[in-house]
Amino acid sequence: MGTHQHPLDTLLELQVLDRIPRSGYSVRGVADPESVAEHSFHLVFLAWALAAEEAGLDRARVMELALLHDVAEVRFGDLPRSAAHYLPAGAKARAEAAAAAEILAPLGPRATDLHAEYAAQATPEARFVAACDKLQLLIKTRVYESWGCTGLDELWARPERFRDSEFGVVRRIFEELWRRRQRAADAPLPRP
Amino acid sequence: MGTHQHPLDTLLELQVLDRIPRSGYSVRGVADPESVAEHSFHLVFLAWALAAEEAGLDRARVMELALLHDVAEVRFGDLPRSAAHYLPAGAKARAEAAAAAEILAPLGPRATDLHAEYAAQATPEARFVAACDKLQLLIKTRVYESWGCTGLDELWARPERFRDSEFGVVRRIFEELWRRRQRAADAPLPRP
Amino acid sequence: MGTHQHPLDTLLELQVLDRIPRSGYSVRGVADPESVAEHSFHLVFLAWALAAEEAGLDRARVMELALLHDVAEVRFGDLPRSAAHYLPAGAKARAEAAAAAEILAPLGPRATDLHAEYAAQATPEARFVAACDKLQLLIKTRVYESWGCTGLDELWARPERFRDSEFGVVRRIFEELWRRRQRAADAPLPRP
Amino acid sequence: MGTHQHPLDTLLELQVLDRIPRSGYSVRGVADPESVAEHSFHLVFLAWALAAEEAGLDRARVMELALLHDVAEVRFGDLPRSAAHYLPAGAKARAEAAAAAEILAPLGPRATDLHAEYAAQATPEARFVAACDKLQLLIKTRVYESWGCTGLDELWARPERFRDSEFGVVRRIFEELWRRRQRAADAPLPRP
Amino acid sequence: MGTHQHPLDTLLELQVLDRIPRSGYSVRGVADPESVAEHSFHLVFLAWALAAEEAGLDRARVMELALLHDVAEVRFGDLPRSAAHYLPAGAKARAEAAAAAEILAPLGPRATDLHAEYAAQATPEARFVAACDKLQLLIKTRVYESWGCTGLDELWARPERFRDSEFGVVRRIFEELWRRRQRAADAPLPRP
Amino acid sequence: MGTHQHPLDTLLELQVLDRIPRSGYSVRGVADPESVAEHSFHLVFLAWALAAEEAGLDRARVMELALLHDVAEVRFGDLPRSAAHYLPAGAKARAEAAAAAEILAPLGPRATDLHAEYAAQATPEARFVAACDKLQLLIKTRVYESWGCTGLDELWARPERFRDSEFGVVRRIFEELWRRRQRAADAPLPRP
Repeated sequence: MGTHQHPLDTLLELQVLDRIPRSGYSVRGVADPESVAEHSFHLVFLAWALAAEEAGLDRARVMELALLHDVAEVRFGDLPRSAAHYLPAGAKARAEAAAAAEILAPLGPRATDLHAEYAAQATPEARFVAACDKLQLLIKTRVYESWGCTGLDELWARPERFRDSEFGVVRRIFEELWRRRQRAADAPLPRP
Repeated sequence: MGTHQHPLDTLLELQVLDRIPRSGYSVRGVADPESVAEHSFHLVFLAWALAAEEAGLDRARVMELALLHDVAEVRFGDLPRSAAHYLPAGAKARAEAAAAAEILAPLGPRATDLHAEYAAQATPEARFVAACDKLQLLIKTRVYESWGCTGLDELWARPERFRDSEFGVVRRIFEELWRRRQRAADAPLPRP
Repeated sequence: MGTHQHPLDTLLELQVLDRIPRSGYSVRGVADPESVAEHSFHLVFLAWALAAEEAGLDRARVMELALLHDVAEVRFGDLPRSAAHYLPAGAKARAEAAAAAEILAPLGPRATDLHAEYAAQATPEARFVAACDKLQLLIKTRVYESWGCTGLDELWARPERFRDSEFGVVRRIFEELWRRRQRAADAPLPRP
Repeated sequence: MGTHQHPLDTLLELQVLDRIPRSGYSVRGVADPESVAEHSFHLVFLAWALAAEEAGLDRARVMELALLHDVAEVRFGDLPRSAAHYLPAGAKARAEAAAAAEILAPLGPRATDLHAEYAAQATPEARFVAACDKLQLLIKTRVYESWGCTGLDELWARPERFRDSEFGVVRRIFEELWRRRQRAADAPLPRP
Repeated sequence: MGTHQHPLDTLLELQVLDRIPRSGYSVRGVADPESVAEHSFHLVFLAWALAAEEAGLDRARVMELALLHDVAEVRFGDLPRSAAHYLPAGAKARAEAAAAAEILAPLGPRATDLHAEYAAQATPEARFVAACDKLQLLIKTRVYESWGCTGLDELWARPERFRDSEFGVVRRIFEELWRRRQRAADAPLPRP
Repeated sequence: MGTHQHPLDTLLELQVLDRIPRSGYSVRGVADPESVAEHSFHLVFLAWALAAEEAGLDRARVMELALLHDVAEVRFGDLPRSAAHYLPAGAKARAEAAAAAEILAPLGPRATDLHAEYAAQATPEARFVAACDKLQLLIKTRVYESWGCTGLDELWARPERFRDSEFGVVRRIFEELWRRRQRAADAPLPRP
């Protein structure tokens, strides 16, 4: 593939994000799971919707960070979390940065800078999108559970990641999601 | 469904856009075609990438219009173009406006206003996103054709829609896409 | 598409009903849900099987009405019930009538007349097929529930539509279906 | 499974025909191929549409024969043609008759008689449906070819089965289908 | 198809085992169920892994028997268990033997002999692979159940087939599997 | 996940290889592409079949190496070739070794040793399986091309990898495959 020269190369290659399933769902048996493209749409939407309730965030840059955060997966696939664990520290991030730079080259330096800003997690906007990324995982998980998927408990394992969030709106949406999940669990079995 | 009260209702319902295939591809035999969520991701990306080359557009609003343009399809499905033809003039647009208003209610009036701005097609940003929407259809189509799908000629039928575009970057990207498609057609058959 | 001239045009176009999923199941998360073609097969079978137990129905015409009742969806898609709600009264029915007339033209006026008879719901045969259409939805739903799908409760919401049916056999089959669903719900959880 | 006692048993079991792909397409690489339920719908439609042009056929019985012709596949799967070749003469037909009798039992003897009438191929209606069954295979094949599938030549190998048909309408529709396929083959490559 | 002459014919034809779903899961509603190729991989692995714990088995031959045991299904499909019941005694086995001989011909007589050895079930290795074949069905079933599939109880109906096995390791692995399934069933509902 | 303690843990986890598509095909648009489990089955078969024609290979160990060569992908996914390019030299191999050791632990040291032997590529058997791994990719590719997939040319780019193979049977099978592909390319277009 190498480094793209024309914006159309970038656009054509990114279409393939449709065919990269989110591995966390695949290995837990969700049929026809979310693709990376679908996840990215929902993340842009989520980050855009919640940023309005969080003072001091640059909402436009939040959208851009969300839009670009997973583009490298078109060359990497969506590595399961277990995969990163076996790689040297930072190897995955460096690889994604290199791939993103080659993919996004024809769009000018701003695109690559945004990708790097997200990876560095040093700005409030980057941290906000990262928090939304984890939240989006649970929103989709809740939907799959409401459809009958049962192998997803593990994804709910660390609520403190949300409860300790620096962003109030992330804490609030998470609690509402958690509460609805509990309520469903306490209800008499809804299906015969 | 009715009118949502809580942002989480909106977020949960929109996940279902993953399960709504783009009908223009389904009825032409594309296997596992793009979902409305995937299309929306690619449209936001495309409009964001191209807006940088078009003077005088509010790039942030361009992204927002693209993000919201198809949310009503979660209640409507993705009607084939042939369907609109049989409905009274404006019926589809009015129905989508009503559905969008109910879906987006918990996000405040700005969300609904953006959906209406796109429908009205009166601002340059709205027209730009609409031009990108048509262009995205052909970019994905080109990808499907490169994979072996052959029933898609009809989608290329009206190049003048792009050649007469008010937006230079849309004209340029389209010509590059068209040129590559021709070049592939003129080449000796690539596959044995 | 327009109005077909040759029966083969009709036959070829209708093959595409295989690629139109029944939206009521798609948006509720059923994996690989019934297509409109599959639904139509089961409706013809159901209406044929039950008509034998209902005095005074023209069984051959019952089959024909069932066979044709959804052909317009090849141009319309399978609109979710929520969609019709946003359209002007009668708009969906008029659109389907126009589409059906164009699709069925090469088969002679009888085909279009049968489609219109179903839409008008004025003959006992037409009403019988409509009752079976709703019943078929629940039979398939029951099958999906037995496979582990859980988001389908809403589809069972109005049992009185069946209990008040003018057709005894529809009432009887529905009660048996309802009873089996209850029995399954009361049983200890069948799956570890 | 055994012999059913209640019509609802029959109806519930037949829903599973949705999950039985037509093996002739599967083994030739068609993605998401026609199910037996979809094939059966198209056969009922085809036989009904063409019977109107063939004097002396009982159109209602034609529909019934088509409706029932493949019900045994819910217990047998859709054996590839190559499979029958390895079984003792008549074994497949006898097995299907036994399975159909058990499945259809609650619908009364007429249903089983119709299945047997089709298997015996002694009446004009049974032979007409059998001819339509082969024709439907090629109509769907033509659709798949127009979508880009290329492994299906073998299915067109014996045109004389249609050209020698006792039914004029089968001969005519086949010739039109064959002519269109030739015309497409002679055209310059439609896709770049 | 007939009898192959070149090893590449065998290799190419067997790729199609990817497109033959295991019918026992299809008819019970598992979405995207195991293919015969996948089952065969897991059987080779299982038989290889367990053979190490069973004295006196030729482990290499165990692998070969497992590798070849289902190759005939590429011409036969994966007949549901209910299908064999309707065929004359031995007809399915004879058909598979004939098909396997034609498919495997270019690989020399040893391949066909191994297929025959498995069918005859006269050697400990052949019986061991057959026991593993049944065990693999339940291992996959347990995985599907953990994902939310609920229509699979029937597959657990005859534990004595494992408890009475002549192979200790089969008995032990089955008991562990059974125990885990019970434990999951006794637990409070894991999913809200 | 961590290190497994019981053989059943290993067996259950490996079932998930069914849900990991081979990324080289996914990103090139093959619908419903081969899973890692399917690939592994075909590799064991291929290596077993060809090893018989290559003097001096331990055929049983060839099968074992093929059986185990991709087990780590259940935790890693099937990284596209482009991914490895961005990682530090050896990082992928070390990660897979660590993952394989944890997955295979309950099967004793021999299993882990076999995985390491394949990775080291120092024995003829390990090199033979690696050559077959590449060959299997092209055999499946040829099948997909015969079905109509067209985006796969790149996979044929380096015939010298086969022509310079140390294994005569690999060279011979490759040449036959190449020859058939050429013959198909030279033929008049087979499909209308």
